[in-house]
Amino acid sequence: MQKVIFDTDPGVDDAMALLFLHRHPDIDLIGVTTVFGNASIEKTTRNAQFLHQAWGIAAPIAKGAARAFEPSRADDHPAAVVHGEDGLGNIGVPANIDSPVDPRPAFQFIIETVRANPGEVTLVAVGRMTNLALALKADPEIAGLVKEVVVMGGAFDVNGNVTPAAEANIYGDPEAADMVFTASWKVTIFGLDVTMKTLMSSSYLVEMTAGQDRALRLLSDLSQFYIDFYRQRVGLDGMAIHDSCACVYLAAPELFDYRSGPVRVICGGLADGKTIQSPDSGRRYEGSAWDGQPSQSVAVAVQPEKVLEVLRATLTEGRQA
Amino acid sequence: MQKVIFDTDPGVDDAMALLFLHRHPDIDLIGVTTVFGNASIEKTTRNAQFLHQAWGIAAPIAKGAARAFEPSRADDHPAAVVHGEDGLGNIGVPANIDSPVDPRPAFQFIIETVRANPGEVTLVAVGRMTNLALALKADPEIAGLVKEVVVMGGAFDVNGNVTPAAEANIYGDPEAADMVFTASWKVTIFGLDVTMKTLMSSSYLVEMTAGQDRALRLLSDLSQFYIDFYRQRVGLDGMAIHDSCACVYLAAPELFDYRSGPVRVICGGLADGKTIQSPDSGRRYEGSAWDGQPSQSVAVAVQPEKVLEVLRATLTEGRQA
Ligand SMILES: [Ca+2]
Ligand SMILES: [Ca+2]
Repeated sequence: MQKVIFDTDPGVDDAMALLFLHRHPDIDLIGVTTVFGNASIEKTTRNAQFLHQAWGIAAPIAKGAARAFEPSRADDHPAAVVHGEDGLGNIGVPANIDSPVDPRPAFQFIIETVRANPGEVTLVAVGRMTNLALALKADPEIAGLVKEVVVMGGAFDVNGNVTPAAEANIYGDPEAADMVFTASWKVTIFGLDVTMKTLMSSSYLVEMTAGQDRALRLLSDLSQFYIDFYRQRVGLDGMAIHDSCACVYLAAPELFDYRSGPVRVICGGLADGKTIQSPDSGRRYEGSAWDGQPSQSVAVAVQPEKVLEVLRATLTEGRQA
Repeated sequence: MQKVIFDTDPGVDDAMALLFLHRHPDIDLIGVTTVFGNASIEKTTRNAQFLHQAWGIAAPIAKGAARAFEPSRADDHPAAVVHGEDGLGNIGVPANIDSPVDPRPAFQFIIETVRANPGEVTLVAVGRMTNLALALKADPEIAGLVKEVVVMGGAFDVNGNVTPAAEANIYGDPEAADMVFTASWKVTIFGLDVTMKTLMSSSYLVEMTAGQDRALRLLSDLSQFYIDFYRQRVGLDGMAIHDSCACVYLAAPELFDYRSGPVRVICGGLADGKTIQSPDSGRRYEGSAWDGQPSQSVAVAVQPEKVLEVLRATLTEGRQA
């Protein structure tokens, strides 16, 4: 069993990824930490509570950062157009969910859980990386105690989705992401290079959820707004299942190709939030800011149909209504 | 006949491109403007004089910028490791060449030549774009009078060659490049995306120049240092003929594929000198710095063997010793 803390800003694609982690037989979801991003921290935390209740997820929830690591950064990226005002496709999540939230802030929950399970915890971060950066700042030694950090974020050899340079999770907190990518732990990164190739069509979603249990019907309902966004604003019949890519990796890492090398995040200027890797196999540079930073893995190719199949099988196995 | 001003910092690959422009029957080389870059402005100007004398080129030479458009920028990129101390592969260019140089600075030469030939002049810029930026600043109206600007520079969907982010011509003067790419004229850009795929092997060069005239033997001699650089430092048997790509385009534009969209250059920070395009066919962004800028063409694919063949045919046609 892989012990996983899911750091998330639900978020429609976060919701699908959460259900995958909950239902996969080899994954032990030992905590969910929330972060601002697709909606405010109040909404993403409430959405995590709502999904836990609806789907019977027992893992503790710890509430995380309300703003970026550098407090001077304004959060000027409106995600409501993508995920709905409530962050879950405007399905009408109740304003308050009567379920417990861990008293610790997310970064403290991460530190204590990692220290209690040295070498065993995988952090799957699919929102802004603020909580991870705060944990590293408060307790740098956790870098040596985490098994692996798996990230959805960035745009390496492709354009971004917030600006031509930057992807939303990184753009929302570039300083935090740069700290996470340059820390001495193993990081595997799933950016738009692969997630924008992993599209679930509306008909695939219909077939996957038809005749299934209430959990999958809820997943289908909350995904409709997001599918409409992709159809109307991006011009695609299908939604990018960004966050699920990072989670399917845990079960089937062979479905992606990886490139190794230090990764830096541009902070400020026109390329604010852009991720750039200096591949180990590539050219040597004289005295660049990538020198001496740890090599991380960036996913550069994907087998989308097989990722969808792993996802579908896990979400639906033995779950007919 | 296409009227061409060649803006250049010779430079080994500049020299090959110059001979191509001189020998192509459909190209009328009406001026050569020099710029600092592969070596100091004194050396690149002297090298242009040397090549003119050796190859019987009559086009006037105008000496250009000695430093970047923003005077506060230091030129800290040592190119001697690529092109030799003299900028021409350490073949022993005489310190002074007794041949005339136009009295006007390069930017003034460009302005007056363009105004004398409205709508007819193509500017082929294969060094830092400082002269073009100075010309635009002194006389913005020339943007509407130039036929086309053809640039070798940038790294769009690939890593740079000076830093993981940036290519040398852009890195050496990012502000100038951003001004050139956002001006209201037609710009076609050949970056490392295509030029690093267009390699001339040492055996190809040997075969191309064997039994040919003195001009080609000189080209072969001055290229040896550059070939050694590619073998020893980049790990390739073959040299990237960067500047020739931009020139072959004039004769055979069908050998490249292009992507249309505004291009911006990152100025400052870790991505200093990076080029980023927002493709017209791509995602729409809310209020980005690319909005409202003119669409330019970026070469994204190349048929390298055919480019080499056009180059070889033009350089050698009827030139056997
Ligand atoms: Ca997310
Ligand atoms: Ca050049």
